[in-house]
Amino acid sequence: MPRYALLVEYDGAPFVGWQRQRDGMSVQQVLEEAAAPLNGGVEPVVGAAGRTDAGVHAEGQVAQVDLGAELPVERVREALNTRSRPYPVSVLSVARPDEEWSARFSAVHRAYRYRILNRRARPGLDMGRVWHVPQRLDAEAMHEAAQGLLGHHDFSAFRASSCQARDALRTLDRLDVSRQGEEIVVRVEARSFLHHQVRNMVGTLAQVGRGLRPVSWPRQVLDARDRRHAGQTAPAEGLCFVSVRYEPGLEWPI
Amino acid sequence: MPRYALLVEYDGAPFVGWQRQRDGMSVQQVLEEAAAPLNGGVEPVVGAAGRTDAGVHAEGQVAQVDLGAELPVERVREALNTRSRPYPVSVLSVARPDEEWSARFSAVHRAYRYRILNRRARPGLDMGRVWHVPQRLDAEAMHEAAQGLLGHHDFSAFRASSCQARDALRTLDRLDVSRQGEEIVVRVEARSFLHHQVRNMVGTLAQVGRGLRPVSWPRQVLDARDRRHAGQTAPAEGLCFVSVRYEPGLEWPI
Repeated sequence: MPRYALLVEYDGAPFVGWQRQRDGMSVQQVLEEAAAPLNGGVEPVVGAAGRTDAGVHAEGQVAQVDLGAELPVERVREALNTRSRPYPVSVLSVARPDEEWSARFSAVHRAYRYRILNRRARPGLDMGRVWHVPQRLDAEAMHEAAQGLLGHHDFSAFRASSCQARDALRTLDRLDVSRQGEEIVVRVEARSFLHHQVRNMVGTLAQVGRGLRPVSWPRQVLDARDRRHAGQTAPAEGLCFVSVRYEPGLEWPI
Repeated sequence: MPRYALLVEYDGAPFVGWQRQRDGMSVQQVLEEAAAPLNGGVEPVVGAAGRTDAGVHAEGQVAQVDLGAELPVERVREALNTRSRPYPVSVLSVARPDEEWSARFSAVHRAYRYRILNRRARPGLDMGRVWHVPQRLDAEAMHEAAQGLLGHHDFSAFRASSCQARDALRTLDRLDVSRQGEEIVVRVEARSFLHHQVRNMVGTLAQVGRGLRPVSWPRQVLDARDRRHAGQTAPAEGLCFVSVRYEPGLEWPI
């Protein structure tokens, strides 16, 4: 069956997450239901590069779906965007990878962004898009602390208890923290991540930003390999899945 | 009674607009109900610099309220932000102007921003924040056409039939159109605006952007002073009230 790659944007707020669940609407279910008419009325399975949690957003999620027909990519995109209404999910582009390509397993690089609104007043316009931390954060201290986590490590200390990965060895390529006006923006890149790894790292760095822990502490947490030593899990709503890279790269024709 | 100035941010989506109405929640009602405990349990009147329509957002609305007590500005802000939950309204700052100051009538300059998402795919993350125009728009042509509207004119052609202003003479100080990736951003500034003036100007410029009308057309519409000649009213959701200026300026202490 012909395989299609989908570049997908969504607001995570109304969803139980990427993955189908019994207790609410998921991004996966929206896309699978929207794709059924393109697949002889049968809902196909739609897989994703990253199975984002409830409340997590995406501006560059990549998904895959096999459909029972050869269709122009424009038609696949238009049909999915028409039938996924009124949910805040949009298929930005559709490509035709070869049939060995997997949205999840062929990915060689993933990028996330985490936004903290760092001001006294709670969010108005960006409610559901940011983690609101009213206490002043020192972004430079957070950035310095973050550099101690770069490289190949056992990230057990930042792994959710629910994480299903076989091991906790990961290579963190980037963890940049910067202030942009009232916002602290964290940019994170790696080949792959453990469940809650980004949110646990951000929650730990925020302790440093508030001056509650020294700059050296996140690295000590990493080395201890014990989740109980890390900071809180930062809330889902500040997290956005920005992009996925493949080798060879996917060509998005539209 | 002591007068307080409020710098307010809100997401317009869930509201019937700034102004109180019987058929739904307004930003004004959220703030008046939140302010009652600061005013001996009586809801005070909260007035605004711009009475935004349903769906229109604000990142720099300015409002005024008289309260029956001298209160620290921090306390007013914290109380309003606690009691306005869970609505997407946030008081960013509180000032103490003199008692002749009026949020509406003392304003000498207002700035709006209008966002158009100009791509095939409908908005996912920015649903409710942008006007989606799938046909390619020529931002340079729109900008050139916009310059013909600058200055002091009778803006009857861009005025809603519901507009209650005594006359349609206004001075347009800025109307810039630029492309930022997939977005067309329109920045508009004037001392004051007619009802729907920004949205009617944007709808008219979009006709030029699509190539349906020449660059000279918006000025012809202006000169004809007849609303029936203008383009559609651009949807509320793309519009954001950015800032208000006063002379002498308000000092936002927090």
